Amino acid sequence: MTQPAARPTIGAGRLAHRLSRARQVATEAGLDALLVGTGADLRYLAGYAAQPLERLTMLVVPANGQPTLVAPRLEAMAARACPVVEAGTVAVVEWDETDDPFVLVRAAIEGAGERPLGLPVRAVAVSDRLWATFLLRLQQALPSSRCSLLSSVLREERMLKDPDEVALLRAAAHAADRVIEQVAHGRLVGRTEADVSREIRDRLLAEGHEEASFAIVGSGPNSASPHHQPTDRSIRAGEPIVLDIGGTLSGYGSDITRTVWVTGGDPAKGPDRAFLALYGVLRAAQAEATHAVRPGVPAERVDAVAREIISAAGHGRHFFHRTGHGIGLEEHEDPYIVAGNLEPLRAGMAFSIEPGIYLEGRYGARIEDIVVCGEDGPVVLNEVTRDLIVVHG
Amino acid sequence: MTQPAARPTIGAGRLAHRLSRARQVATEAGLDALLVGTGADLRYLAGYAAQPLERLTMLVVPANGQPTLVAPRLEAMAARACPVVEAGTVAVVEWDETDDPFVLVRAAIEGAGERPLGLPVRAVAVSDRLWATFLLRLQQALPSSRCSLLSSVLREERMLKDPDEVALLRAAAHAADRVIEQVAHGRLVGRTEADVSREIRDRLLAEGHEEASFAIVGSGPNSASPHHQPTDRSIRAGEPIVLDIGGTLSGYGSDITRTVWVTGGDPAKGPDRAFLALYGVLRAAQAEATHAVRPGVPAERVDAVAREIISAAGHGRHFFHRTGHGIGLEEHEDPYIVAGNLEPLRAGMAFSIEPGIYLEGRYGARIEDIVVCGEDGPVVLNEVTRDLIVVHG
Repeated sequence: MTQPAARPTIGAGRLAHRLSRARQVATEAGLDALLVGTGADLRYLAGYAAQPLERLTMLVVPANGQPTLVAPRLEAMAARACPVVEAGTVAVVEWDETDDPFVLVRAAIEGAGERPLGLPVRAVAVSDRLWATFLLRLQQALPSSRCSLLSSVLREERMLKDPDEVALLRAAAHAADRVIEQVAHGRLVGRTEADVSREIRDRLLAEGHEEASFAIVGSGPNSASPHHQPTDRSIRAGEPIVLDIGGTLSGYGSDITRTVWVTGGDPAKGPDRAFLALYGVLRAAQAEATHAVRPGVPAERVDAVAREIISAAGHGRHFFHRTGHGIGLEEHEDPYIVAGNLEPLRAGMAFSIEPGIYLEGRYGARIEDIVVCGEDGPVVLNEVTRDLIVVHG
Repeated sequence: MTQPAARPTIGAGRLAHRLSRARQVATEAGLDALLVGTGADLRYLAGYAAQPLERLTMLVVPANGQPTLVAPRLEAMAARACPVVEAGTVAVVEWDETDDPFVLVRAAIEGAGERPLGLPVRAVAVSDRLWATFLLRLQQALPSSRCSLLSSVLREERMLKDPDEVALLRAAAHAADRVIEQVAHGRLVGRTEADVSREIRDRLLAEGHEEASFAIVGSGPNSASPHHQPTDRSIRAGEPIVLDIGGTLSGYGSDITRTVWVTGGDPAKGPDRAFLALYGVLRAAQAEATHAVRPGVPAERVDAVAREIISAAGHGRHFFHRTGHGIGLEEHEDPYIVAGNLEPLRAGMAFSIEPGIYLEGRYGARIEDIVVCGEDGPVVLNEVTRDLIVVHG
């Protein structure tokens, strides 16, 4: 396994450039402002990892004029310490517990730059995960404004990762790789799914993740439920386990799935022939889909490659989710590798390739890597073997 | 410290009753339906702890007719296993990756019960934390419908905790108490805030929390930032640390703050007189605010009691957040203990009481308990001492 290397940081200069680009795309899209709540977009534009709470934190990026960060006073110290505020690119407006922060947001749009006084706000884009409690109040505060989604204007910027972002994704992937290796070399039989899930979360943190977001441990029949939530079911010898784990490291996501088969040390409890056949099909589908990645290929083509192989083996209806999702500052983001997404892949896009085959009531399997579209083809970030891992512990 | 006791579970019968009440309040409010995304409301009404992801999961509760859970197919196994579906109270409608789930939501409202065919949907309430990406699409799918917030109709139901819910909050509080005790008896000087924060999260999980949501460790000058995020700053002898920690246990939240002073074993590094004075004021404010809790008292009165004591000591402007927030299936929910909230407290309401005093650049302190309004006065769930804890490690 690769050991951790020094990781790049995204500094104030890069953030200022991103903000400048954001204002440009806002102008091109005819928007008065971008309204950015807590989450990935705020981190992308301001380097600020604010907590998602019921007090509004909102970066207001007017098409013309300086961006303003509206922040609750009890988070003002944190807000003022974020890189774009320290660099003077963004001003902070604090609000007290009895203030109306939506009035401040409106003022930050209307008072910006060369904007003529009294002109109503006609169009804004809000971050995709802004809560309804904020959006409905914004719609009241800006009654003549059309609201669209920030992803519709910022997705290009967010989708195309620069080399530093790819390095951060790689560091996260390698950390998750090490956790898979560690778990696959430990004891599994007799433990509950929840216990193994807990171990995985601990190990993700020990390997440098600041957050262990998920640790799916689907054993036996539960391996047929793609988003299974770990239970108190005890793992038994002679069954598969789907391990789908990830979190964030320096803000960037990891997400890897490996399917292991546990024998408990009993040679008679190895994988049955039907499972080996199923896994072989899946392995080929995942490899071929990865192989199909290159600039210009429509995103849905990668999905189709995996699906055709699985369907040809008679498992089409047992693969009932898309093949992958983009990854970056969010676990799931554009581009989605799904039927109907005609968007051509471009160098710098990063996404998962994760076909699965699920036989409800029996068992299932999934293999997932994070792949970056390189100039000449796929760059696979994960390094753990994709062969079926047989665990004797 | 109290040891864990058997915890009640909220079963299908209780959930069916909640759903029935929800339909009743929807009817009274003139709503066609309640639209419940992932999160606390879904857990409250359906016992379903679905992950918040970009694929729509939505419980549709029509005022007239059976509720429907719209769920992505890859989560169908989990959706079908939730108590209200197993009990037959709620039907599941699965959607495939290329379906439009908003069409299914609309159909689940329009096709419900005794509703006349062709009648447009005029009013719905959506869960407060529904993402903009979902809300804007719902607004498009239901163009003639007014959207309000679910909290406006369900807050009464959610705010008044029944005895089983209080027992769950108490179990969570006691688990967090034990973590504070453990950390206060360990070594702190020389370690980074981030390291101590990590230990706290581990201990919350070890004490039975399924999620350790936050572990604020604000040392020295950082103790003056109420929502400080732990850094690599090393803790030094002769300074205070604000520990504000919590998570969820059986779905219900814990949230406790204690301020400790670390000496590193050096008697000369004890709390200075100014800090002891500040802490004494804070201690009195927190105690008197708690003492003010009883049915009929306006929520803002509890805030005012704390604020008056702190202001009288000359620290009014150093206490710049509200005194508390409700707690239950969400960390922060109604009722808020804040100026302007005239709502009379009622037996069964559960909330934090957490005044703080913050001297920017120097240090700060906060004391927080979870308190339930009982028939005769406050029931304090946390049991750790509220005296200043001096740590010699």
